[in-house]
Amino acid sequence: MKCEVICIVKKEKSIFDNIIEKYSSRVKMQMDFSIKKIKSGFKGKKSLSINEQKKIEAKLIENSISDSDYIVLLDENGFNYDSEEFSEFLNKRLISGIKKLVFIIGGPYGFEEKILKKYKNHIALSKMTFPHQMIRLFLIEQIYRSCSILNNTKYHHK
Amino acid sequence: MKCEVICIVKKEKSIFDNIIEKYSSRVKMQMDFSIKKIKSGFKGKKSLSINEQKKIEAKLIENSISDSDYIVLLDENGFNYDSEEFSEFLNKRLISGIKKLVFIIGGPYGFEEKILKKYKNHIALSKMTFPHQMIRLFLIEQIYRSCSILNNTKYHHK
Repeated sequence: MKCEVICIVKKEKSIFDNIIEKYSSRVKMQMDFSIKKIKSGFKGKKSLSINEQKKIEAKLIENSISDSDYIVLLDENGFNYDSEEFSEFLNKRLISGIKKLVFIIGGPYGFEEKILKKYKNHIALSKMTFPHQMIRLFLIEQIYRSCSILNNTKYHHK
Repeated sequence: MKCEVICIVKKEKSIFDNIIEKYSSRVKMQMDFSIKKIKSGFKGKKSLSINEQKKIEAKLIENSISDSDYIVLLDENGFNYDSEEFSEFLNKRLISGIKKLVFIIGGPYGFEEKILKKYKNHIALSKMTFPHQMIRLFLIEQIYRSCSILNNTKYHHK
């Protein structure tokens, strides 16, 4: 199974890049993993309303995925797993024959309603609101932690 | 009110330092804020049991706080606030006349039972387990976000 994290970004570079790269390279040693950054292209278009931004982001997202992908949206109203439950969620996808699991982190205002309705798997990493760059880091760390739980290595301990 | 984050660390330096410093300096513009790193000193003492480690950490923690401090432990079994609730929690402490609010992030195996029983305010940033360095970053970002919520600045938006 391939696993991809898609994220809407304003800028190509971020202060989180080094740390994200560290966890990402660890995940790549465990599974076929990639990160796809989609530039929102809003620079200089500050006059766009929140709904207009979400609409543009929705199109960018739809253009980046296939009908056969298993989509999971990172949404703060989504289901709160603990790390063991999240590893179980990943494991079920791994053994179910899915070709590509795609986690999507939306823009700063979340997803357009259409996207939320179309893709019904919503997960939240916390009840708290965090910057989107941080969500990317948390998610990749949790994917790595899941690998540790599933492979019973000592990175994760209770 | 002073606000301090105390954390048990293995090493003085961490790859999160730059980002933590960024958020920390933002918080300092809003309140009297500091971070205190306590070195656990376990290097080369890998034969210590988990309980022995927790006991040593508990002593280091007790030596770093005063009886008059208002203590909050970061514990994964603690209460899950959302960001608005957390800002309300902070605000209540601010207006209650507390001199020093201290958040404590324990070692990799959590706190000794004695500490958990003595200090009854336990909060969790997520149901998920994260590395302790990351918890430090999450917490400081949430303190900054709380300042934004309380001061109604645009860093935090729904």
